[in-house]
Amino acid sequence: MSELSHNVDKKLVLATGRAHPELAEEVAQCLGTELLPMSAYDFANGEIYVRSGESVRGKEVFIIQAHPAPLNNWLMEQLIMVDSMKRASASVITVVAPFYPYSRQDKKGRGREPISARLVADLYKTAGADRIMSVDLHTAQIQGFFDGPVDHLFAIPLLADHIRKIVGDDDVTVVSPDTGRVRVAEQWAERLGGAPLAFVHKSRDLTVPNQAVSKTVVGQVAGRTCVLIDDMIDTGGTIAGAVRVLKDAGAKDVIIAATHAIFSDPAAERLANCGAREVVVTNTLPIPESKRFPTLTVLSIAPLLARAIKEVFEDGSVTSLFDGNA
Amino acid sequence: MSELSHNVDKKLVLATGRAHPELAEEVAQCLGTELLPMSAYDFANGEIYVRSGESVRGKEVFIIQAHPAPLNNWLMEQLIMVDSMKRASASVITVVAPFYPYSRQDKKGRGREPISARLVADLYKTAGADRIMSVDLHTAQIQGFFDGPVDHLFAIPLLADHIRKIVGDDDVTVVSPDTGRVRVAEQWAERLGGAPLAFVHKSRDLTVPNQAVSKTVVGQVAGRTCVLIDDMIDTGGTIAGAVRVLKDAGAKDVIIAATHAIFSDPAAERLANCGAREVVVTNTLPIPESKRFPTLTVLSIAPLLARAIKEVFEDGSVTSLFDGNA
Amino acid sequence: MSELSHNVDKKLVLATGRAHPELAEEVAQCLGTELLPMSAYDFANGEIYVRSGESVRGKEVFIIQAHPAPLNNWLMEQLIMVDSMKRASASVITVVAPFYPYSRQDKKGRGREPISARLVADLYKTAGADRIMSVDLHTAQIQGFFDGPVDHLFAIPLLADHIRKIVGDDDVTVVSPDTGRVRVAEQWAERLGGAPLAFVHKSRDLTVPNQAVSKTVVGQVAGRTCVLIDDMIDTGGTIAGAVRVLKDAGAKDVIIAATHAIFSDPAAERLANCGAREVVVTNTLPIPESKRFPTLTVLSIAPLLARAIKEVFEDGSVTSLFDGNA
Amino acid sequence: MSELSHNVDKKLVLATGRAHPELAEEVAQCLGTELLPMSAYDFANGEIYVRSGESVRGKEVFIIQAHPAPLNNWLMEQLIMVDSMKRASASVITVVAPFYPYSRQDKKGRGREPISARLVADLYKTAGADRIMSVDLHTAQIQGFFDGPVDHLFAIPLLADHIRKIVGDDDVTVVSPDTGRVRVAEQWAERLGGAPLAFVHKSRDLTVPNQAVSKTVVGQVAGRTCVLIDDMIDTGGTIAGAVRVLKDAGAKDVIIAATHAIFSDPAAERLANCGAREVVVTNTLPIPESKRFPTLTVLSIAPLLARAIKEVFEDGSVTSLFDGNA
Amino acid sequence: MSELSHNVDKKLVLATGRAHPELAEEVAQCLGTELLPMSAYDFANGEIYVRSGESVRGKEVFIIQAHPAPLNNWLMEQLIMVDSMKRASASVITVVAPFYPYSRQDKKGRGREPISARLVADLYKTAGADRIMSVDLHTAQIQGFFDGPVDHLFAIPLLADHIRKIVGDDDVTVVSPDTGRVRVAEQWAERLGGAPLAFVHKSRDLTVPNQAVSKTVVGQVAGRTCVLIDDMIDTGGTIAGAVRVLKDAGAKDVIIAATHAIFSDPAAERLANCGAREVVVTNTLPIPESKRFPTLTVLSIAPLLARAIKEVFEDGSVTSLFDGNA
Amino acid sequence: MSELSHNVDKKLVLATGRAHPELAEEVAQCLGTELLPMSAYDFANGEIYVRSGESVRGKEVFIIQAHPAPLNNWLMEQLIMVDSMKRASASVITVVAPFYPYSRQDKKGRGREPISARLVADLYKTAGADRIMSVDLHTAQIQGFFDGPVDHLFAIPLLADHIRKIVGDDDVTVVSPDTGRVRVAEQWAERLGGAPLAFVHKSRDLTVPNQAVSKTVVGQVAGRTCVLIDDMIDTGGTIAGAVRVLKDAGAKDVIIAATHAIFSDPAAERLANCGAREVVVTNTLPIPESKRFPTLTVLSIAPLLARAIKEVFEDGSVTSLFDGNA
Repeated sequence: MSELSHNVDKKLVLATGRAHPELAEEVAQCLGTELLPMSAYDFANGEIYVRSGESVRGKEVFIIQAHPAPLNNWLMEQLIMVDSMKRASASVITVVAPFYPYSRQDKKGRGREPISARLVADLYKTAGADRIMSVDLHTAQIQGFFDGPVDHLFAIPLLADHIRKIVGDDDVTVVSPDTGRVRVAEQWAERLGGAPLAFVHKSRDLTVPNQAVSKTVVGQVAGRTCVLIDDMIDTGGTIAGAVRVLKDAGAKDVIIAATHAIFSDPAAERLANCGAREVVVTNTLPIPESKRFPTLTVLSIAPLLARAIKEVFEDGSVTSLFDGNA
Repeated sequence: MSELSHNVDKKLVLATGRAHPELAEEVAQCLGTELLPMSAYDFANGEIYVRSGESVRGKEVFIIQAHPAPLNNWLMEQLIMVDSMKRASASVITVVAPFYPYSRQDKKGRGREPISARLVADLYKTAGADRIMSVDLHTAQIQGFFDGPVDHLFAIPLLADHIRKIVGDDDVTVVSPDTGRVRVAEQWAERLGGAPLAFVHKSRDLTVPNQAVSKTVVGQVAGRTCVLIDDMIDTGGTIAGAVRVLKDAGAKDVIIAATHAIFSDPAAERLANCGAREVVVTNTLPIPESKRFPTLTVLSIAPLLARAIKEVFEDGSVTSLFDGNA
Repeated sequence: MSELSHNVDKKLVLATGRAHPELAEEVAQCLGTELLPMSAYDFANGEIYVRSGESVRGKEVFIIQAHPAPLNNWLMEQLIMVDSMKRASASVITVVAPFYPYSRQDKKGRGREPISARLVADLYKTAGADRIMSVDLHTAQIQGFFDGPVDHLFAIPLLADHIRKIVGDDDVTVVSPDTGRVRVAEQWAERLGGAPLAFVHKSRDLTVPNQAVSKTVVGQVAGRTCVLIDDMIDTGGTIAGAVRVLKDAGAKDVIIAATHAIFSDPAAERLANCGAREVVVTNTLPIPESKRFPTLTVLSIAPLLARAIKEVFEDGSVTSLFDGNA
Repeated sequence: MSELSHNVDKKLVLATGRAHPELAEEVAQCLGTELLPMSAYDFANGEIYVRSGESVRGKEVFIIQAHPAPLNNWLMEQLIMVDSMKRASASVITVVAPFYPYSRQDKKGRGREPISARLVADLYKTAGADRIMSVDLHTAQIQGFFDGPVDHLFAIPLLADHIRKIVGDDDVTVVSPDTGRVRVAEQWAERLGGAPLAFVHKSRDLTVPNQAVSKTVVGQVAGRTCVLIDDMIDTGGTIAGAVRVLKDAGAKDVIIAATHAIFSDPAAERLANCGAREVVVTNTLPIPESKRFPTLTVLSIAPLLARAIKEVFEDGSVTSLFDGNA
Repeated sequence: MSELSHNVDKKLVLATGRAHPELAEEVAQCLGTELLPMSAYDFANGEIYVRSGESVRGKEVFIIQAHPAPLNNWLMEQLIMVDSMKRASASVITVVAPFYPYSRQDKKGRGREPISARLVADLYKTAGADRIMSVDLHTAQIQGFFDGPVDHLFAIPLLADHIRKIVGDDDVTVVSPDTGRVRVAEQWAERLGGAPLAFVHKSRDLTVPNQAVSKTVVGQVAGRTCVLIDDMIDTGGTIAGAVRVLKDAGAKDVIIAATHAIFSDPAAERLANCGAREVVVTNTLPIPESKRFPTLTVLSIAPLLARAIKEVFEDGSVTSLFDGNA
Repeated sequence: MSELSHNVDKKLVLATGRAHPELAEEVAQCLGTELLPMSAYDFANGEIYVRSGESVRGKEVFIIQAHPAPLNNWLMEQLIMVDSMKRASASVITVVAPFYPYSRQDKKGRGREPISARLVADLYKTAGADRIMSVDLHTAQIQGFFDGPVDHLFAIPLLADHIRKIVGDDDVTVVSPDTGRVRVAEQWAERLGGAPLAFVHKSRDLTVPNQAVSKTVVGQVAGRTCVLIDDMIDTGGTIAGAVRVLKDAGAKDVIIAATHAIFSDPAAERLANCGAREVVVTNTLPIPESKRFPTLTVLSIAPLLARAIKEVFEDGSVTSLFDGNA
């Protein structure tokens, strides 16, 4: 006899960085487990140190990290965690990045620009990630930046269920805040029972970040409840400007729905005062108390992440989570 | 003395596959050179054999191949050419694919789909390509699929110059044939001096290829000359349907402009009879006589390719070709 | 408790491209399973779309594809299937290519030639294949082109069993149709109980494909039953010429045995009329009715593939399938 | 004629991130050139955008970045710069990191720790760096983490020249502040003409960063001028403790010499008050006015970097910069 | 039903090269298994042939090889074994190299030197190794040379337990034979209950291998039992010289402890006659009878390797083997 | 101005390992240059140390190494030389291996065998080689094992010119010593003006190296001068046995021609006494005086290597060296 046998028992471990531990804890609760104990701290010069408090040898590790500011820190922390899990002999490492970092820099808009979203995919790969899980990528093509499986989850069902309740029998128009998301507005329109479409037409000065000039609306909005949708809200300038344009064009009411609440200043102030009836977002990014305001509703993405992680771990089909449309 | 000296003289070689030799010859003429002599033929079972008739050792090779049907054949021929140039010690190999193959399959629209556009980028890399040059990618994110420089050229200036001449003083509206290209319509609108925007709203059944159901138009088109733009025309169903919708909505006239004339049957017939005043395309793909019709105008992309190749070879800036907007 | 447990159950999935579905179905029957339901169709310009109808997450997938003409199409279809399985999180992907594409272009015969067989191995790797299974590679060195395990199956036992029955007590000589396969003839000779060897000496003009000039025979053939062996029959010119040479040299009878029936025109006609008593091949490639003729015998390779797949899946030894000589 | 010729002229471009532009400017001056104009700014959520203001196509680019806190930011900026240069077709990209980030995490001290210094080398490679240049790596083995040439420069000659001047005819002992740098102290001793060696013996609690407990001194220090050397000073706890131990052991005087002035709080205060006669460092990291104190001397590393860059660019030998001891 | 199921049972296989089969057999005994039967022999020109006598398909293989002279032979044999296991479809391959080859060439000491220890890590990776296990690496940074998990085992507990017994109540000083291993001496000192430290100060001519000039001792050794420690003993020149220096400095007694007994000539003679009371080493390398002498004690490393292999195979924690200090 | 310019001057450097310096020196003479000064020696335990005595930064390096016994040593020396050149920033590194190591193990003849020839190609790649140059590979498919250009040189013209002179007007038959080299014999026959072919039919016991049982000859040899050809002569058993068989079959005379003179014992004795009129080989491997015998003729391969190196360096065509048949 020249071999030994050993009975296998696949094991899932859930770990989190320090950017948004509440989300990870909520995911752990949904899964009926606990987070892996981790030591993690910063050296005084900014270097990060991490170490798992338990062995992960041979286990399937999911490393959840949100990416609010200071984003590069949280990204590096996640990369270092992946590296440590690889060297500690984890069997499969899945990066869970609910808001994919640098997703807006997904093409060379002009010569000599980086494609930072591809760089991020390569950095995850280099550190040792086998798979990525993310929610509402800025463009679906980002899936192709990673050389391995990407589980692309969608928050539209979660958001739309909530919107349907609050609009009741209103006449609804789904509005894209710019020319780039009309296709997504169309998906929303289907979810809301075939509502008509509109978009706001603006021009953006490419050399200055976080700025945009809203202009005019194309489509029927007068007297209607507008659901203004976007994948992310950063400083809120574009979206607040769109609310104004819609109101000026006779909209009865405006509800804002977006997945990723980046909420860079002065987003909270702008959104609170822009005249929208309600602002609905998810917690893919942490939203501190100081950035919350009365008309803000935050839906939790944790149950969706938990279901997807469970499906991945048990080798079921993530596709089944999305009515066959994922 | 333990070394020999040798003076460097960079050399450019232009080679072409058999899919569209006329385009490559036109590029060679623009550059004032000749095409590399190549042996290429098919074995009876479909295997392809290629061999350069001259040494390419140490030279910078540009391998031009168009990708009409049978597309997989032309793709394999180009890959085999790249492999042979790599093994023959070419110093730098640039794949020139004016119409990027499989560019429409650039994301996992549904679970278990391939991302064939990324696969194509990886195949080029694997065969030995150092750089890719292409025109009007279906989505700009495809640049990020290749792990190296991608020269993304734009045909809008070429097409728009022609359009400007033929519309004269007409009131123009730029129309996107679906919700996915409104952003590109916006770029056209800027090129045409700030024309208003519109789009046609349709729903596409994802499980059946080459089919689409046109519906309604959003935006001002009555009494105006509509410039209906797209990156490619395949069977022409979507675009011909859009012409009908625009005419029904009171458009005075419709001009179609697209970069890639795939023209799968029955595109030529549909376009000839759809009521459009003119159909303007480029020759990134060969258009046989049998698919030409009286209202078709074909502009040559060869001068643009030649200029870009020259810039790349001489290490100038391709960005400079595009008014700083490339 | 910071981990979840889950019991492992390895699962095998058998998928097939559209080149030769009958073979895949026969393999599935031998294994007592069914083929994975797949959507696969061509866009009008030749681009291929595939999608699995069931989840393959965590499963071990075998993707069977034959490679008759149009070979590049079937190769691309298989690559795209591998890509889609990789992105759908299959655990291990085995490419089953009974006739390895481009196996004849396995070296740089002259300067500036590609090594297309290595390119094919790299393309499989790039798409995501973990392992390759093939039958009677043109040269065994092709195994070394792939950076991973290659299961190299042999059809000689299958063919030789049949030959032994039909030659009965005849005096047999094993004949190689050219100087390159004398070593293989030697293996046949052992299988047939130590029969003597001969070869036909020809010269081939390397610059023209599918042509060969037969010349003379070296070895004892007069009054004997010649078993003329080859790995593949393409247009049949070489092999039919060899039959003539053997007959001229006084052979009593000629039986042709080959694994891969490429049968490019005019192979069927040539073989039917060349004077051979019987032509024995396998179905590694589909043979349409129009290419069958009275003296043709087609043996099924499916049981061999099924046994090898089962061995691989259950981690047994493929070596054991071949009397310890594989 | 089937090729075009073009005369080559190698070009060097010097670019810098925003961490320490003064150092890069000083290097540029030493080289007689100017820095590449760059656009670089932060989006409100911390994402970084960079773009070169001039074409770098075909040029050899050196990207200088220092890595003070917030270190992850500066590292990501440099990676994004490398990515953008790669996609803009730079011919060779050299990362100049005077203080190598995460150099202290260069081994798995305990199970499940990352090896962040290797991760950093892989990230540079992934982004597209061809070569790394750095000064006084924490351990020379870090050179082996990068899969390509590493130019490892030494500041000892620069620092030692200054020390020699200020110690005059004193009896000097070279002292290592812990057991890990006695070998480096030995190199210093040779530079200072064969001075005797000593070391301070301490134990460090590995689970708490930036803390150390000094204990006792081994070697002759009573009545002598001690040159206390280290590669970096972070919070200054170890080094200040060592001064105290040396003074207690009867040292006449203590001079501190270190290459990298990380100076995390409260380093400046500790060093100013520790009793050392002088603290000599280089400007591999920026030292703000607020962290300078009367006994601090900062030597510029710029001339050394400039000479090494020039040697690399002109393909001379960096080895020659260091008396044959590099 | 379109899939087959199969129950998994992880299997461990222990294989060995021909350099030190006794060690591998002892490890097998500790594990309660037998070594994989292997054919291995040398062709007359030095080429090595290996082949496993049993199927390893799907099994987890540990390939033990020691690396005494002729070291390159044993390294190549191990690489070829890894290659054969990869191509035979082993699931995970762990290289067990108790003495890591070329560990001393772990940095570019001078320009144009190789970093052979990194090269060795890359060779293991290229051949197909998934993981490395080794004992007392020359520098711990070598872990970072391999792009995957490295199990770094420590012999200090084994050696120190023995030393503690033989020194009894003596006053002990732990001595490093040069300036480079004072940190390791410190770890020994802790193991031996806080013994004081000393080191011998020598200068080594870098251009001549295996030579060193001992000089003087720093620290308290007069009248004490000195434990002279090192990671390896090659020709024994350095260590025997250090014994002399310690005796000259009044040491009562010297005990030598080292992990790797390379024992190149004339190590055995030098050690036998150097005046040390005892020389304690392990059997990470084979020690032939001809190199054994009365004062030599060889401790077996096999139980440690066996425990680590068992932990790895059962996905436990190797860290737990080392009192939390590994 | 933000860039510096610098004039390029390509430089060739010729380096050699210690296996066969005479060959390298002869190549250097043919090129009119000198060998790079190298330090290279063995540590007592067999580890190899190398270092270039001059800077190779930016230069094109050709590293010549022969591979006689102890072959693994010379292979490792060459790999370490490549590694050191890579880290010393050589621009292009070409491995010159006149006799490719492990070329006989180029396929999995049986299950669980390594493919050592592929492993060697991967090791060269991993160490940093950009290109390989070799003479008369055992099978031409080995070219496809390396992922880059391979310059495959042929000694047949050199050997055949000599043979032609010594056979004069004899009736010549070209004989392959086994069934595997009949194709090569055919190429010889063409070179010698269309001589007839024959082969010796033997069976080899695969499990015992260096042994073979000669049997019988197929083809016309009686009364003729037989030119017995092979790519390499190892122990000479096969070839000497073939001479006997040919003589027994009535051959008038036998001349042996082979490229690689491995000459493992007892080759020299066997060849001297086998009855062959002359044995013609090249010096791709060193042949010590003790293995030379009166009927041995050694032709120098150096002029061929020198011409090929010159062609590669000047980017001409190596193909041109071989009458268009390379």
